[in-house]
Amino acid sequence: ECAWLCDLWPCDRLKNTNVRVSLPAVCFVWQIAMIVLFGVFVRYDKESDAHWVELKKTENLTDLDNEFYFRYPSFQDVHVMIFVGFGFLMTFLKRYSFSAVGFNFLIAAFGLQWALLMQGWFHHFDYSTGKIYIGIESMINADFCCAGSLIAYGAILGKVSPVQLMVVTLFGVTLFAVEEFIILDLFHCRDAGGAMVIHCFGGYYGLAISWVLYRPNLHRSKRLNGSVYQSDLFAMIGTLFLWMFWPSFNSAIANHGEGQHRTAMNTYIALASSVLTTVAISSMSKKGGKLDMVHIQNATLAGGVAMGTAAELMITPYGSLIVGFCIGIISTFGYLYITPFLEERFKLQDTCGIHNLHAVPGMLGGFTGAIVAATASESVYSKEGLIATFDFTGKFENRSPGTQGGFQAAGVCVAMAFGLVGGAIVGFILKFPIWGDAADDNCFDDEAYWELPEEEETIPPVLEYNNHMTQQKHRET
Amino acid sequence: ECAWLCDLWPCDRLKNTNVRVSLPAVCFVWQIAMIVLFGVFVRYDKESDAHWVELKKTENLTDLDNEFYFRYPSFQDVHVMIFVGFGFLMTFLKRYSFSAVGFNFLIAAFGLQWALLMQGWFHHFDYSTGKIYIGIESMINADFCCAGSLIAYGAILGKVSPVQLMVVTLFGVTLFAVEEFIILDLFHCRDAGGAMVIHCFGGYYGLAISWVLYRPNLHRSKRLNGSVYQSDLFAMIGTLFLWMFWPSFNSAIANHGEGQHRTAMNTYIALASSVLTTVAISSMSKKGGKLDMVHIQNATLAGGVAMGTAAELMITPYGSLIVGFCIGIISTFGYLYITPFLEERFKLQDTCGIHNLHAVPGMLGGFTGAIVAATASESVYSKEGLIATFDFTGKFENRSPGTQGGFQAAGVCVAMAFGLVGGAIVGFILKFPIWGDAADDNCFDDEAYWELPEEEETIPPVLEYNNHMTQQKHRET
Amino acid sequence: ECAWLCDLWPCDRLKNTNVRVSLPAVCFVWQIAMIVLFGVFVRYDKESDAHWVELKKTENLTDLDNEFYFRYPSFQDVHVMIFVGFGFLMTFLKRYSFSAVGFNFLIAAFGLQWALLMQGWFHHFDYSTGKIYIGIESMINADFCCAGSLIAYGAILGKVSPVQLMVVTLFGVTLFAVEEFIILDLFHCRDAGGAMVIHCFGGYYGLAISWVLYRPNLHRSKRLNGSVYQSDLFAMIGTLFLWMFWPSFNSAIANHGEGQHRTAMNTYIALASSVLTTVAISSMSKKGGKLDMVHIQNATLAGGVAMGTAAELMITPYGSLIVGFCIGIISTFGYLYITPFLEERFKLQDTCGIHNLHAVPGMLGGFTGAIVAATASESVYSKEGLIATFDFTGKFENRSPGTQGGFQAAGVCVAMAFGLVGGAIVGFILKFPIWGDAADDNCFDDEAYWELPEEEETIPPVLEYNNHMTQQKHRET
Repeated sequence: ECAWLCDLWPCDRLKNTNVRVSLPAVCFVWQIAMIVLFGVFVRYDKESDAHWVELKKTENLTDLDNEFYFRYPSFQDVHVMIFVGFGFLMTFLKRYSFSAVGFNFLIAAFGLQWALLMQGWFHHFDYSTGKIYIGIESMINADFCCAGSLIAYGAILGKVSPVQLMVVTLFGVTLFAVEEFIILDLFHCRDAGGAMVIHCFGGYYGLAISWVLYRPNLHRSKRLNGSVYQSDLFAMIGTLFLWMFWPSFNSAIANHGEGQHRTAMNTYIALASSVLTTVAISSMSKKGGKLDMVHIQNATLAGGVAMGTAAELMITPYGSLIVGFCIGIISTFGYLYITPFLEERFKLQDTCGIHNLHAVPGMLGGFTGAIVAATASESVYSKEGLIATFDFTGKFENRSPGTQGGFQAAGVCVAMAFGLVGGAIVGFILKFPIWGDAADDNCFDDEAYWELPEEEETIPPVLEYNNHMTQQKHRET
Repeated sequence: ECAWLCDLWPCDRLKNTNVRVSLPAVCFVWQIAMIVLFGVFVRYDKESDAHWVELKKTENLTDLDNEFYFRYPSFQDVHVMIFVGFGFLMTFLKRYSFSAVGFNFLIAAFGLQWALLMQGWFHHFDYSTGKIYIGIESMINADFCCAGSLIAYGAILGKVSPVQLMVVTLFGVTLFAVEEFIILDLFHCRDAGGAMVIHCFGGYYGLAISWVLYRPNLHRSKRLNGSVYQSDLFAMIGTLFLWMFWPSFNSAIANHGEGQHRTAMNTYIALASSVLTTVAISSMSKKGGKLDMVHIQNATLAGGVAMGTAAELMITPYGSLIVGFCIGIISTFGYLYITPFLEERFKLQDTCGIHNLHAVPGMLGGFTGAIVAATASESVYSKEGLIATFDFTGKFENRSPGTQGGFQAAGVCVAMAFGLVGGAIVGFILKFPIWGDAADDNCFDDEAYWELPEEEETIPPVLEYNNHMTQQKHRET
Repeated sequence: ECAWLCDLWPCDRLKNTNVRVSLPAVCFVWQIAMIVLFGVFVRYDKESDAHWVELKKTENLTDLDNEFYFRYPSFQDVHVMIFVGFGFLMTFLKRYSFSAVGFNFLIAAFGLQWALLMQGWFHHFDYSTGKIYIGIESMINADFCCAGSLIAYGAILGKVSPVQLMVVTLFGVTLFAVEEFIILDLFHCRDAGGAMVIHCFGGYYGLAISWVLYRPNLHRSKRLNGSVYQSDLFAMIGTLFLWMFWPSFNSAIANHGEGQHRTAMNTYIALASSVLTTVAISSMSKKGGKLDMVHIQNATLAGGVAMGTAAELMITPYGSLIVGFCIGIISTFGYLYITPFLEERFKLQDTCGIHNLHAVPGMLGGFTGAIVAATASESVYSKEGLIATFDFTGKFENRSPGTQGGFQAAGVCVAMAFGLVGGAIVGFILKFPIWGDAADDNCFDDEAYWELPEEEETIPPVLEYNNHMTQQKHRET
């Protein structure tokens, strides 16, 4: 059906996974560009600059007033989620674990640098000095920004080259910074844990890329598109670090004090709830009530995604439980029925099922946040609590919770639109046959991009044994 | 010998591991019950409620006075211990790693919800409003409360179904909340790291369950009751995260300031000491001085358990070293001699040896705490330090350290009694043949409850080869 | 060539890996010595002593002023690096993972106790009371001090016995405390992340030991001196936890406030940069642009090492990027060319390549710090910022940045000298044939020191099958 595309894009040429020129070139050139741009634009903010020692005296601050102490423990948890969480979650494939954890490492390391710049230009640019001032909050936001591209990696896992992943990240971070600017700054939405800006955007971005890169003959790599016992255990390391630290993820940039406190607690509760419904649906769906590791590794996390916006708000503890309850069911159903349906009917190959873990829970989480925001009241939040929670200050002083809810809902649509349109465009760019991606029968294979160690146990020498038996027989006769 | 039981309980019927109805039913019904009960009872406490913004002003607080900043880093460490620590520690069995980490995940996610309710009713119930108010300390305590049931899981690992584990957790958390109320509230004991309320209780609870569920023919599953090289490495992930974060476990709910500081340091020192004596005894016990991974994975942790009560007190740094020194020896001896002895003579099958890691070190840790408390003096603690450390306020204003020591010792006995009696009762409930546990020859096998991936390396096709040889022979003749 | 040595040291006698007497003896005796020395010397410092409750009142402090809250989250991250980071990084060998993670555990647990004493005597000894007072900062420094010896373990991994490792640690910690005293106290250098005192010292210490212990016939163990797929994944756990928590490592004992803030951020940025150049060089060096896991596991971390001194200073964000950029290239080149060259020409066997990850990056990081210090100015730091950053107080009140730079450079030389000379001496001690190290054909094998589990998949019963076929044939004839 997409044959007309092949006229435009020569997608049928022989695939060649040699990246010996392109990968070093991309790494070197982009890293040098980072150095130059950092040199021109990036400086320490006032809380990480040595001048703070004087500022502390003039403003009568204590050491603990430094933002570092409010955010650093959460930052480290988020950092673990980005590198160990996302990295190991994708190691479930039997022969793609090096690429899962290694390329995740590479693109996150690049993405966070580019994010410091992009988010700096859009959010923290000081027009008087022409500089971006960075601190601990910039580091958390840079990690968040990477997450969007790492989610997208989940959809195309095993089917793209590291060079393509760098391109995905370059555009992913760029698009992220723009949609985040629209949603958080122009629409003045609340989205502490990024249900909209991270998960909804990242999910649809990855799905759109994967849809454009559809491989009709991917079944030729079917032998490698599955897990083994040990790889599922490595993936559980990723799952658990994501699950455990999700309260930190959602609360990392929430308001000081009760804001961070409530966000962490709501997320903690919702995640617990989604574990039980995931197990329930998984068990119901299989003969003998056996559980499926794919569900346990993924759908248990949907509670954290779905609380990305609402966790900061007064959703109540039982409200959090309900969100976790529903999203656990929806996400597991997605793995059971929607992902196969999308692949068969919409030609959408989604290796990790990010549709069910990020795209849909992110979208629903965004709408949940919109509803909770729209129903906010002074009796529940207190007058000052309402202003502080939604930052109804400055030109947003007179915004009502109802209006806020409307903007929150609009934010979800912006995130989806950026994901889908941006992903489609990036997908077309990646169809160029210059990126070193594998042929359809070599997907999901580390062999293409890694020097692999020899096998531990050599195959039993059946052939030798054969010869030996034949000789014996000759002797016998 | 227990034949008379079989008349009462039909324990001999054919075992059936199908949990397709029971597991989803338990998950759904109990999760819905949680939502209803949370809806009726659970609200944000004042430090996580949006009203705090106003409270902060009226009470002249700063953001940092929020309890969140005193406890959150410790909470995250405890959370890692519960899910990665306990989960991976039990992955040492060659074919039960999915169940180890997966069921640990399930029951902890349920247990923490039930614990928020049970501990709330017993400790934080506000009779004026009829509500429970939760915050960061509730989250830590809920994780602690789960730990009791996760310890019990260690004794019955491989021999029970996930439905039985949910029952173990339901009753475990309930019993925990009651004994904790007696020990901490009525007896006014100090037990920051839960040597008594968590480890001693959890250990004996699990042992009593396992004793009732004795399987005379468990040797039929012997082929699976052992580790392989990789599974031992996965277990070391659990060991190390438990070991590293134990200072946070013991100090998480200790007094602010010097209380948390001293508790963390004492635990850190004691754990280091128990590593050396564990290695020494392990090496002495084997031909050639070879070390046994079972000891390294478990007995090294006993120092943390044994300091659960005393770490908060002025036990002195060398006192901590001595506790670690002794308990490392005792625990390793337990693995070498006591566990086999208990299995042979007392028909007590203890898969993970929780007797040596939790029950005995917890009990001894409780008595250590009693002794250190009884010998406390104003010269060592200062007058106000003594009051603050033991909370000698209100109706306990006139309690002497000697009396405190007596109550601490009584607390150990309460914990043991609750564990043994409660565990025996729960064990009998679990003997009902409706829970889907495996037959004696299918224990320690993930196959019963998990869809397993196919093997990485297929077994050499001996059968095909057979046929091939036969045909060859026919042709030859 | 070193035949003259064999006259002095009987290095040719039959090797015997039996450590059944020596290992328990060392563990017991040294642990008892620790208890005695702690009893004589070690007490709680004023912030972890119960008297703090009174001090708080008299000095009008709040709970949060306790040093615990400034350092504890960083301490836990450092603790993870020491035990999981270093431990798992060395699990890459196919059959030496137990020893990697287990002996790392043992020697770090011993080393931190000895470090509390040694560093206490040199840095925190109170001559009026004759005691050492320890607190959270002592714990961090003790972990740091262990790191020196753990780095040295990397060079001799697979070639020494656990008893030898205990000796390496005993002397390593001792030497560390002395060189640290010279560099930090006498020279008054800044070295928050220990580029000089930890990495440069530890690296050259290990290299000198390994050089003395040169094994001419190590090729006989070549079959085991390599990785397998799963062991490389376990090693990535170590790599990532080191990489993620390096910002905490470098900032753990930096100045409160902006000091910790800036140190963490500079390290974060430099590490990201070194990932990209490592990938670039690794890909360029191999046919097809394939990546080498050895580089990804190690050279990506060099950015953290190289920033060990300068991260605390106003090196600027782009300065950090440049350091990461260069050191990623240098370290990867080291793995490609220098390590093989050193082995062939200088008879230096460096199992983990610590030359490229610690020795050289540590040395260059020290000199980088010297240059950044020498060029410090009041305009960049502010007057008070300069004093605070370099602690130009007391007898160092009038030191100029230029002089400081000179002393920093001298510090690097001291660290190298202590490493090389100390390592050579320790190496000769370890040549005594009493330590239980393996023969040249049994290196890199857990079998020597561990009770190993049986293999998961038994070899197909060829012999039985043979018999079966023979019987069949007999029946046929």
